Amino acid sequence: MTNIAITIKTIEEKGVLDEITKIISYYNANISYTHLYIGKNNLGSINLELENIDKIDELINDIGKLKAIQSIEKHGSLKDIYGKRIIIFGGGAQVSQVAMGAVTEADRHNIRGERISIDTIPLVGEEEIAEAVEALSRLPRVSALVLAGSLMGGKISKAVANVKSEHDLIVISLNMPGSITEIADLIITDPIQAGVMAVMAIADTANFKVNKLKKNKF
Amino acid sequence: MTNIAITIKTIEEKGVLDEITKIISYYNANISYTHLYIGKNNLGSINLELENIDKIDELINDIGKLKAIQSIEKHGSLKDIYGKRIIIFGGGAQVSQVAMGAVTEADRHNIRGERISIDTIPLVGEEEIAEAVEALSRLPRVSALVLAGSLMGGKISKAVANVKSEHDLIVISLNMPGSITEIADLIITDPIQAGVMAVMAIADTANFKVNKLKKNKF
Repeated sequence: MTNIAITIKTIEEKGVLDEITKIISYYNANISYTHLYIGKNNLGSINLELENIDKIDELINDIGKLKAIQSIEKHGSLKDIYGKRIIIFGGGAQVSQVAMGAVTEADRHNIRGERISIDTIPLVGEEEIAEAVEALSRLPRVSALVLAGSLMGGKISKAVANVKSEHDLIVISLNMPGSITEIADLIITDPIQAGVMAVMAIADTANFKVNKLKKNKF
Repeated sequence: MTNIAITIKTIEEKGVLDEITKIISYYNANISYTHLYIGKNNLGSINLELENIDKIDELINDIGKLKAIQSIEKHGSLKDIYGKRIIIFGGGAQVSQVAMGAVTEADRHNIRGERISIDTIPLVGEEEIAEAVEALSRLPRVSALVLAGSLMGGKISKAVANVKSEHDLIVISLNMPGSITEIADLIITDPIQAGVMAVMAIADTANFKVNKLKKNKF
């Protein structure tokens, strides 16, 4: 039973994903992620990440028999390549400092075999950030969220509580006014350290567990 | 005809995606992205981004009739929320400087209504970076790639050429030894400026087109 990823090139045809999912469901495998696009050459590409595959060669063989299929390629999963994701939201002076701390620290871990990505969207506004937090549920491989601003609460705090109730997600907030510091797992005053600690909190190469700390504000 | 995103909560059941894609294909809509996961409450979540939807309410109604479905929620697409993506690959001193330039510049554009994300994975090694470049095809919403290192060529350059042949992608490289500078659209010596220019190159709020430049090395 393994997890693999495949990319299927097809002549553009609406029904083809339907036929492919039927085959995958026959093989009792789970699809965890798909991304579909039409390339410059007008061929459709269907990328699938599959879990619990028992008979991968038979599965690929059966998909290859569909008439719209041009080629099927097996490759590493996005988790193998881009690893765990730290997501940074916020605006102004702090957001790039958090990113700099996280990227520099991730470089030190990734060079030892870890795979950690640092994904940032600079955003301001309670509604905007709350919506971006809610949408985290729809992104793959998210392990930690860092909130990099100077005032966050209200809908943002509600959205963070919602996402935490559904996912195992470490939330780090800068030290700031607003209710977000009551909900975050860790409150860090220095933005560079906030980025560094987000990486330490999710890296298998680091000996640091947020839930083992005796206090959570630094 | 619009693009929308829906999240469907289901009692975990392998065949349900198969049934959902059948309905979507009946309505002649395209699926561009899906992400599936099992939440802490053991409910399955299926997030779908759909293109060319004509009869969204009828579609949702029909999906809701499937017996495994608990709820269906309509919401903004990931493109509306996280926007275009700039991807930064590379390691060492430069990678966090490129990220800092890009995040700071994206903050200035996003505050005026743009949505640009800056996604970074610090990585070293020809094989590793080449594999990460190839996998860009499997990520949604990628508009630009910045290569932040001190020596890149060989398999990395081949992978960049491959991805460029399939996608409209602006590639910016730091000025460095190696064949990457022969393939990149723009070669920038200062890492902070490389990040800033990646944002300017894809922002609708900036009046800057890479292909209008008389030279491409700065």
